[in-house]
Amino acid sequence: MTGMTGYHHEKDQLLRRLRRVEGQVRGIQRMVDADSYCTEVLTQISATTKALQSVALRLLDDHLGHCVQDAIARGGEDADAKVTEATQAIARLLRA
Amino acid sequence: MTGMTGYHHEKDQLLRRLRRVEGQVRGIQRMVDADSYCTEVLTQISATTKALQSVALRLLDDHLGHCVQDAIARGGEDADAKVTEATQAIARLLRA
Amino acid sequence: MTGMTGYHHEKDQLLRRLRRVEGQVRGIQRMVDADSYCTEVLTQISATTKALQSVALRLLDDHLGHCVQDAIARGGEDADAKVTEATQAIARLLRA
Amino acid sequence: MTGMTGYHHEKDQLLRRLRRVEGQVRGIQRMVDADSYCTEVLTQISATTKALQSVALRLLDDHLGHCVQDAIARGGEDADAKVTEATQAIARLLRA
Repeated sequence: MTGMTGYHHEKDQLLRRLRRVEGQVRGIQRMVDADSYCTEVLTQISATTKALQSVALRLLDDHLGHCVQDAIARGGEDADAKVTEATQAIARLLRA
Repeated sequence: MTGMTGYHHEKDQLLRRLRRVEGQVRGIQRMVDADSYCTEVLTQISATTKALQSVALRLLDDHLGHCVQDAIARGGEDADAKVTEATQAIARLLRA
Repeated sequence: MTGMTGYHHEKDQLLRRLRRVEGQVRGIQRMVDADSYCTEVLTQISATTKALQSVALRLLDDHLGHCVQDAIARGGEDADAKVTEATQAIARLLRA
Repeated sequence: MTGMTGYHHEKDQLLRRLRRVEGQVRGIQRMVDADSYCTEVLTQISATTKALQSVALRLLDDHLGHCVQDAIARGGEDADAKVTEATQAIARLLRA
């Protein structure tokens, strides 16, 4: 690890998307506060979950295409460790 | 619809949980901003998704136990419509 | 419980869909046996999972529209128990 | 591609797990045929979905640790293509 992250080249875009997710969560709060109908709130939660998963997929793509790819190109034990670590992150996403 | 929601009795608790989710999303932004390691960011996204799904399950339980239950107790066509609507909300959550 | 199920009226259709899912699982076995490319096997697993979830959504709709609806129409404590039971089934599906 | 798959070394184990999944799907058919209670059928569907996802995660780990790792070690354009392909497979699993 050199402090470089796989998402370094698109940090601004990721932050923009995460701020939009934050806005969606605040929108859900306003809906609940305004006594919005249950299934409408649920629809917004589904959309927000989808947006979060989509950020996760971008991060995963960056991670595989940079961190994991670099570790493999360097070779050695670290390559296997990185692959295991990536699979574990995917398992956590699937079970979320 | 009388303006009453299924989650009326626990609105404060839902809002507290949603504010915690908002805090988690801001935490993810700070991690990205601080160049945190990809899989650590992914772990936080999984946890936040799980927290959102958990709020959705509470809302769904409230909805079935109040809105849907009331519609059925009143009888008539509205009861079937409410059941269909609930199933559609569940389908959206599953596909999120 | 009188032995009647919510899916009684469409049992044949559900069995047909489940036999198709069984066929898909056997198809995945043949792919693995024939050394098919990993991501192609994964694509078939995604399709099979989606087909299973879709059967689950039909069962859930039948359950809410019959078992739960009947329990509520009869009233009493059983209605609440049925709603709780349905929410727990949904939670298990979401976490699968 | 040389016809070698990432899961080559554990093909027998994967086939055993897939046959168990097939058995689970047949078990669900028997439950439906015997008019089992809806939420019990749903519980078995959740368990079967989880078993399928778990096979998918093994395949994904094999794929990243062999096919993708080999492509990266060889270098060239194929490495990037393999990473993109893997991310797309993960996206399909997440949306299943």
